[in-house]
Amino acid sequence: MEIWKVEAPLVCTRRVAGLKQTSLRILRNSSGSRQVAVDPVGAREGNWVFTLSGSAARWAVGDFSVQTDLTIGGIIDFWQAEETQSPGNP
Amino acid sequence: MEIWKVEAPLVCTRRVAGLKQTSLRILRNSSGSRQVAVDPVGAREGNWVFTLSGSAARWAVGDFSVQTDLTIGGIIDFWQAEETQSPGNP
Amino acid sequence: MEIWKVEAPLVCTRRVAGLKQTSLRILRNSSGSRQVAVDPVGAREGNWVFTLSGSAARWAVGDFSVQTDLTIGGIIDFWQAEETQSPGNP
Amino acid sequence: MEIWKVEAPLVCTRRVAGLKQTSLRILRNSSGSRQVAVDPVGAREGNWVFTLSGSAARWAVGDFSVQTDLTIGGIIDFWQAEETQSPGNP
Amino acid sequence: MEIWKVEAPLVCTRRVAGLKQTSLRILRNSSGSRQVAVDPVGAREGNWVFTLSGSAARWAVGDFSVQTDLTIGGIIDFWQAEETQSPGNP
Repeated sequence: MEIWKVEAPLVCTRRVAGLKQTSLRILRNSSGSRQVAVDPVGAREGNWVFTLSGSAARWAVGDFSVQTDLTIGGIIDFWQAEETQSPGNP
Repeated sequence: MEIWKVEAPLVCTRRVAGLKQTSLRILRNSSGSRQVAVDPVGAREGNWVFTLSGSAARWAVGDFSVQTDLTIGGIIDFWQAEETQSPGNP
Repeated sequence: MEIWKVEAPLVCTRRVAGLKQTSLRILRNSSGSRQVAVDPVGAREGNWVFTLSGSAARWAVGDFSVQTDLTIGGIIDFWQAEETQSPGNP
Repeated sequence: MEIWKVEAPLVCTRRVAGLKQTSLRILRNSSGSRQVAVDPVGAREGNWVFTLSGSAARWAVGDFSVQTDLTIGGIIDFWQAEETQSPGNP
Repeated sequence: MEIWKVEAPLVCTRRVAGLKQTSLRILRNSSGSRQVAVDPVGAREGNWVFTLSGSAARWAVGDFSVQTDLTIGGIIDFWQAEETQSPGNP
């Protein structure tokens, strides 16, 4: 399970039917790379979260027919960010 | 779900039967690496999209018997490209 | 199966129901990157462990309905750490 | 689906029974790393191909019981190689 | 299927029940990173092998209930090592 910071919601009008009404979030890790994840826990901008990938991502949404490969699994209560590693934060 | 820019369609005469009549696109991410994905949403050159990998890629096509491991999941409405990170865009 | 050192437990109040009552650990590898894993073997801080990913991660917990994508598979009896490779250990 | 150049066939006398009589190819990508893939399409040395990974790799062979995690999915008709990125081609 | 050199057996007293009586090997690739794999073919220290990942790893053992995500698939008859790429071999 990887560790990410929530950056923003993702606005996406045209998408495959399999994603249904899920909320999408843009995540960014400490090295600056980004991914999109389904959010079933209600994470806010700035939260540190961990994600589930693969088929676990679909089960975690609570509806296996949702076509995701990355789902937020939980919000971390406390995290030392180490943002000095990130190229995007000088 | 990873974020990519659509670069071009992929012309490929000889391919496995499991890909059927799907459209293939060459995608490029902000660090310049490329992948090939099935496109069920009709993305155009220059669109920013996100992709589904693993078994979710097959479900997202709408026909599980299509043998893909990467499928475009949606077109992002607005994306700040940060193309300065890309080695291919001086 | 990847090789990691156990760094700390992960405190996480809000998480998806699919993780149930599992214990989570923060792991760190020799190049300094981190991941979160479910721990069914009782590893302690400082132990070197190897992890199972993908669907094997769920089977290894002993309860396939636990939604993990990374599970500790065993504690390595002896490991030469090579911590000189780690950017976090000057 | 990743993009590779076929480098050579792989000779391998002792292998698991699950690979059956498949042909194996050594592939190399533009950054110089190598992988081994099952070839059901008859690619030749020097061809640029794309590959299917995960469970799609098994379906693509046409026999799901073949134990591969990487299968050549098709031969690309035209590819601008960008071999300047490769450390192995000065 | 990735290419690795067998480095040593892995001694591991405490491990999940799902690994059963399998033999574990520490593998090292040409860039110096390491992984642990189940060995059903009897590879020796110094052999070059290729590995199967994902669910194919479990099928390849011959017993799908073994909880591995990486299994040695075969011993390569002849391999030009290119060990100059390895940071661990000056």
